[in-house]
Amino acid sequence: MIDYNHPAFQYYQNVSEQCIHYLSIDGVIFGFHQNQLKVLLLRWKGTDEWSLPGGFILKTESVDLAAQRIIKERTGLQTLYLQQFHVFGETVRYNQEETWAKINLPIQGINWSERTISIGYYALVEYAEVVPATDFLTEECRWWSLDAIPALLFDHNHIIEVALQSLRKNVGDQPISHLLPDTFTIPELQRLYETILGHSLDARNFYKKIMAQNNLERLAERRAGTPHKAPYLYRFKVAFSER
Amino acid sequence: MIDYNHPAFQYYQNVSEQCIHYLSIDGVIFGFHQNQLKVLLLRWKGTDEWSLPGGFILKTESVDLAAQRIIKERTGLQTLYLQQFHVFGETVRYNQEETWAKINLPIQGINWSERTISIGYYALVEYAEVVPATDFLTEECRWWSLDAIPALLFDHNHIIEVALQSLRKNVGDQPISHLLPDTFTIPELQRLYETILGHSLDARNFYKKIMAQNNLERLAERRAGTPHKAPYLYRFKVAFSER
Repeated sequence: MIDYNHPAFQYYQNVSEQCIHYLSIDGVIFGFHQNQLKVLLLRWKGTDEWSLPGGFILKTESVDLAAQRIIKERTGLQTLYLQQFHVFGETVRYNQEETWAKINLPIQGINWSERTISIGYYALVEYAEVVPATDFLTEECRWWSLDAIPALLFDHNHIIEVALQSLRKNVGDQPISHLLPDTFTIPELQRLYETILGHSLDARNFYKKIMAQNNLERLAERRAGTPHKAPYLYRFKVAFSER
Repeated sequence: MIDYNHPAFQYYQNVSEQCIHYLSIDGVIFGFHQNQLKVLLLRWKGTDEWSLPGGFILKTESVDLAAQRIIKERTGLQTLYLQQFHVFGETVRYNQEETWAKINLPIQGINWSERTISIGYYALVEYAEVVPATDFLTEECRWWSLDAIPALLFDHNHIIEVALQSLRKNVGDQPISHLLPDTFTIPELQRLYETILGHSLDARNFYKKIMAQNNLERLAERRAGTPHKAPYLYRFKVAFSER
């Protein structure tokens, strides 16, 4: 049944005309704050249901640019480090009927796809620079710590899990500098590695390995206001950070 | 202009009705033979033009199963190690007019996509087990050494390059055992690593590193018929090879 008066109707009409059917993009936006890895989630209007940000690809738009557009709109960022990580292409990814009922959307019957193949991108962003913004269908956009994420709509818990595996596998060569402010201490960097990897690391070994990579530059300043001896501040060398 | 008598016409009619528009799959099938990394290519009917194997996704089929189907048809293999590696989603991936002219296909004007987003998969196969088979549009299917690949149709040279980068990046944890016969010598394994990485390796260091991974099992037999002292045969331990 189509409710032609529902405000989402025109939105989906436009999408159906202008975007590529059967395809979508889902974005896992990772941030790092207070020693926690976080993900940006959206709450759907009039519900307690959360999902990842996502959207559709215009017929005239490259897939990468569509991902950039979608994630820029949710974060307010002008430059983004994005990584395509997986295509979710199962014929049945989740219970559609159950899902539409939860979000109370009148989109059954609209000339759209019977299934959606989703291209997953993750973004590594600097937490403090993000201004979370809702989209047309949602009324709250905020960070969730990875270990506190609720049961999400669609297959989005699974998508986050696959994104995290991909980030984990590539932690050594990813520009994870994008998750950090310009300057940071070695313990802060270690905590970032630990939160991505999901287990703790030996501080001395971590220091040795990180220094052996020769990617860091030590500054003259130290971090003030810590309970221990003030640790030095570091930053990534420019070539590595790709900034 | 549509030539309704062209044998490809009915094929594309069926594809247009049954498959997902705007989407395709391209397969980079890697094999290893005579110390060379090879890729399976197809020559289009009545031309000297080569391309990767590829195809379309049925509306009722998962993306992974479509890739399996397409690559099984070209190789005759019943089980396959496949890895999704990249989505090629630019709005203009190659010069369409020039390409259709080269392969002399009457498919302009058929109700199909203005652009195609391709999902790239690579397969790691055992060379000796493959029986190359052409498809409806091609008349020759054979292996090409990576260093001798001609200028291919579409953007397929680029797709091979990206597949190789992905394989290279993951060479340590990929089930590269799928590229080898059940038993092999350490120099043969080293040559496989070298051909994937594109540079030579020090034999002593390679032996040390490979042995430290504890993935190999040495057999009682040795390789006969080599000019040097007969080297031992090895095989991957079952858990690692995923066989």
